[in-house]
Amino acid sequence: MKSKTYGKKSWAFAGGCIPVDSTGKEPDYVSQEVLSILNTTPEEALVQLTFFYTDKEPVGGYEIKVAPQRIRMFSINDLIDPQAVPLGVPYGGVLESNVPVVVQLTRQHTGQSALALMGITVYQADGNS
Amino acid sequence: MKSKTYGKKSWAFAGGCIPVDSTGKEPDYVSQEVLSILNTTPEEALVQLTFFYTDKEPVGGYEIKVAPQRIRMFSINDLIDPQAVPLGVPYGGVLESNVPVVVQLTRQHTGQSALALMGITVYQADGNS
Amino acid sequence: MKSKTYGKKSWAFAGGCIPVDSTGKEPDYVSQEVLSILNTTPEEALVQLTFFYTDKEPVGGYEIKVAPQRIRMFSINDLIDPQAVPLGVPYGGVLESNVPVVVQLTRQHTGQSALALMGITVYQADGNS
Amino acid sequence: MKSKTYGKKSWAFAGGCIPVDSTGKEPDYVSQEVLSILNTTPEEALVQLTFFYTDKEPVGGYEIKVAPQRIRMFSINDLIDPQAVPLGVPYGGVLESNVPVVVQLTRQHTGQSALALMGITVYQADGNS
Repeated sequence: MKSKTYGKKSWAFAGGCIPVDSTGKEPDYVSQEVLSILNTTPEEALVQLTFFYTDKEPVGGYEIKVAPQRIRMFSINDLIDPQAVPLGVPYGGVLESNVPVVVQLTRQHTGQSALALMGITVYQADGNS
Repeated sequence: MKSKTYGKKSWAFAGGCIPVDSTGKEPDYVSQEVLSILNTTPEEALVQLTFFYTDKEPVGGYEIKVAPQRIRMFSINDLIDPQAVPLGVPYGGVLESNVPVVVQLTRQHTGQSALALMGITVYQADGNS
Repeated sequence: MKSKTYGKKSWAFAGGCIPVDSTGKEPDYVSQEVLSILNTTPEEALVQLTFFYTDKEPVGGYEIKVAPQRIRMFSINDLIDPQAVPLGVPYGGVLESNVPVVVQLTRQHTGQSALALMGITVYQADGNS
Repeated sequence: MKSKTYGKKSWAFAGGCIPVDSTGKEPDYVSQEVLSILNTTPEEALVQLTFFYTDKEPVGGYEIKVAPQRIRMFSINDLIDPQAVPLGVPYGGVLESNVPVVVQLTRQHTGQSALALMGITVYQADGNS
């Protein structure tokens, strides 16, 4: 693999909503939304995350670190600092990284006793894209 | 978060079709197609929506407002002015916004008694993309 | 809606495979892959479609017309001229249009008695994208 | 079809994770993640694949050949040289090809006795995209 970098520094998504209901054994089948961040660079990625809502001000200040040449996959359900994202509420998100990264959003919904999956490559929002 | 803006002013999608059948408790599990619009700018977004069909003229004139730094998620099933989108009929859509926005389309289909989800990042159609 | 056009003239996708099994009432729940093409221009779109396979030469010569300002959604299962796409066989596709269009590919899989859906915005392959 | 080429030489995805559980008859309904590569060029594509993990160094050295004007679809579960990708573990991937290709990632998850599908067009990472 060449030492080129992959991805962009800015990402955004519009259609987040953590499902309220779950069925099946935990933790594998809990309904959740998952962000995956790939950092192929030789530097640690520091990703600033801001969530947007329908009826209240955006909430920023979430910081996610991804080590050099590593991926990090985490449930949005687990973010609690500075504030948890409420279940069943529409939200969007913006990610700003200091180095290029690749971002994916996956929704797992087990509320109707059979797993549903939805995945999107998040929109890359860099000015040069 | 920096004051940069995210997204594009023009968006289009080709594969809309609101499922006819639903199972499960309403409203959470009604079959539907949902548009999500993220407006990170300090201005209100005014989004003009036009639907295209197989056998009739396009229907425009739908107006969606998204407040500054807010998201808006709405079911296409609920749009009635100037005209409801019929169920079970293929359609496409074009969105034109006065400020950059990010758009996502999600289909929820519960017709076969287990939830199916499909999500796409809508195609960004700006000339400079 | 302004008279600008939306989309690209060249599109490609890599991961086609029409599911073999179906459950549920026909035709709504037959397993299938569906192409959706949106033509927002004032001209008829003439789309040339070529399929690529694992073990044989590409098969071209499929022609799809989409009327001005219309969409067209069709099951790949229904294409028979010059040759049907076999079920359960991996294939890819390339679309070339005379005017800009937007293309989406959707897979509906009912083989395990609950509907599964997968949708992608097909890759826009124009040199200027 | 014109002799133009389709796709890019560099691709990356962030959200891989091969499901551990499966239900239903094998091999059709085994849980798996599948990469599809379309090569429309007149040359053989040699694709170098590198996987990134959360807690260990990237693993490169996977080589995939795709014949001229062919597609190749393979389960990541089946890659064993130089090292199998463990089940249930988050990973990302980078693909580098000598000729332009189009890449798609599909997850099939049958762990909850009904098929779930998720598909994304992998992020095209070429500098000129």
